[in-house]
Amino acid sequence: MTLPQHEPVSASMKSPLALGIDIGGTKVAAGVVDGNGVILEELRRTTPGRDARAVEAVIVELVHELGARHTLASVGVGAAGWMDLEDSRVLFSPHLAWRDEPLRDTLEAMLGRPVLVTNDADAAAWAESRFGAGRGHDRLVMLTLGTGIGGALVIDGRVERGSFGMAGEFGHQIIMPGGHRCECGNRGCWEQYASGNALGREGRELAKKHSPMAAGFLAAVAGRPRDITGSVVTELALQGEPTAQELVAEVGDWLGLGIANLAAALDPALFVIGGGLSAAGELLLEPARRAYSRNLTGRGYRQEAVITVAELGPNAGLIGAADLSRVRTRPARA
Amino acid sequence: MTLPQHEPVSASMKSPLALGIDIGGTKVAAGVVDGNGVILEELRRTTPGRDARAVEAVIVELVHELGARHTLASVGVGAAGWMDLEDSRVLFSPHLAWRDEPLRDTLEAMLGRPVLVTNDADAAAWAESRFGAGRGHDRLVMLTLGTGIGGALVIDGRVERGSFGMAGEFGHQIIMPGGHRCECGNRGCWEQYASGNALGREGRELAKKHSPMAAGFLAAVAGRPRDITGSVVTELALQGEPTAQELVAEVGDWLGLGIANLAAALDPALFVIGGGLSAAGELLLEPARRAYSRNLTGRGYRQEAVITVAELGPNAGLIGAADLSRVRTRPARA
Repeated sequence: MTLPQHEPVSASMKSPLALGIDIGGTKVAAGVVDGNGVILEELRRTTPGRDARAVEAVIVELVHELGARHTLASVGVGAAGWMDLEDSRVLFSPHLAWRDEPLRDTLEAMLGRPVLVTNDADAAAWAESRFGAGRGHDRLVMLTLGTGIGGALVIDGRVERGSFGMAGEFGHQIIMPGGHRCECGNRGCWEQYASGNALGREGRELAKKHSPMAAGFLAAVAGRPRDITGSVVTELALQGEPTAQELVAEVGDWLGLGIANLAAALDPALFVIGGGLSAAGELLLEPARRAYSRNLTGRGYRQEAVITVAELGPNAGLIGAADLSRVRTRPARA
Repeated sequence: MTLPQHEPVSASMKSPLALGIDIGGTKVAAGVVDGNGVILEELRRTTPGRDARAVEAVIVELVHELGARHTLASVGVGAAGWMDLEDSRVLFSPHLAWRDEPLRDTLEAMLGRPVLVTNDADAAAWAESRFGAGRGHDRLVMLTLGTGIGGALVIDGRVERGSFGMAGEFGHQIIMPGGHRCECGNRGCWEQYASGNALGREGRELAKKHSPMAAGFLAAVAGRPRDITGSVVTELALQGEPTAQELVAEVGDWLGLGIANLAAALDPALFVIGGGLSAAGELLLEPARRAYSRNLTGRGYRQEAVITVAELGPNAGLIGAADLSRVRTRPARA
């Protein structure tokens, strides 16, 4: 993690601490975050399945444990899904059980502290714009490449949510009509071509077709094609395995094409790439930058955006949720 | 900047008049616009080719003629192309001869009045958001369907320009990799599928293949396939010609697909459809709405945007340029 360069220590010492909680499909992470975006203490728990009540109980337990050792002004909870514009209700969370759930009020009643509920990609973008790769930029697009593509847009120093709170779902832009089926129900969504899952699917398909190109993949997973995931291919690519590098570059091509589309629409000066797949670094970003330049409309007549890797790693969501809760929560109700 | 949506008539009576000029590939239109977006007097000239000096001379002539009869506080000039963020320079104008041209300063020196230079699609979106189909909305996407797709995005009551002034080029989002070649140099841009030009191309192709389905088209153009344009097909569709209606509906399908993509990214409550092709009305919009709903990610869990036709017609760009000049121009320099 990179520490902020500009905020004087004396000012940050005065900022109240906030707790950030990132609810993932497999883990719940909680961290005490100071005004510089630094995590002072962190805890992790296994996500208790899809049961909403059980997840809420884990959140309460984490807040109580960390709250006993730190004075926490507010709590920010980030999760994949759509939240309402009041940072209050989870409208829909694909990997969790919440459906139109007043999570903020539930948690505030259980915790007696101000709570903010936010989309995890929005939280990560906020953190990167405040403390990470986006410092000094008032306009950026962040793409978190993992299971899918988490997207968020920061304009004029705030997260752009749209009219109904669902802006930033860049991964569901259809870039290949009739293409791969997406979990959202449509076909040809960008995230079916430029995510960790897409990389894993390509690796598995290659192996299942008995292509000799997949020998290195099969060796890495004891001959079980179904164990070839995006992480496995990324790791092999980083070790120099040529086919893995080819597949990462193909995903990079799709990434760059979609980034060119976002540049046409939104024209930000900066794209920040995070998520598990960003571990591939330049193996992914170099082809992405080339595809971006090749597909950018008006090339030659415009400035080109910078495409760079995120700095805060997997903690970006947690840090951003904490920081947003400090900025946006109202006083807790009685 | 937030502007009042329901400006009282008494206040608007006091608003100074502004001149709006819309420079098209074939015509230059000028209009004196009051604070309610009403055109008090309008003049038109033929665009004198691609010669930048000749176009500037026409602008000056129009300002002098209308300025002799009205007290004009400012002049707004809209044209297809990219303008810098200072509303000052034309960076690139595809159909005109300006290349990195300090048009504002040139015109201010010639006219002795404050001038604003703006993208025509931005101007049209601004006009619709202030005085047309977008009244009361602080967030909308406008799509002007003609030669291509002019796009603009209004967020929080202002036109979103991006980091370099080139946001809103929605027509150049690639939605069909390897598809039709676009004037921008790329392949598969949305405007190659959902514009007036796309409709004309489909009509011409059908006729050139000697399809019996194109008999109605050929009858309308005295047997000359090259004369089948988007306007011809639109007109035939409105007259009830079945093949023309099919082609308009196909373009509507592509329109709806791209709108679903923009909804995923930007989530506005309103899409306003203008430009020549919007004359097709529900023949275009009904299939577009169906395709939008079918391709919208998260359908069932979200509110859907309204897709409606623009209200100000071909004068939207002129009205918007005038109004923006009133809002944004600085005092003219000596």
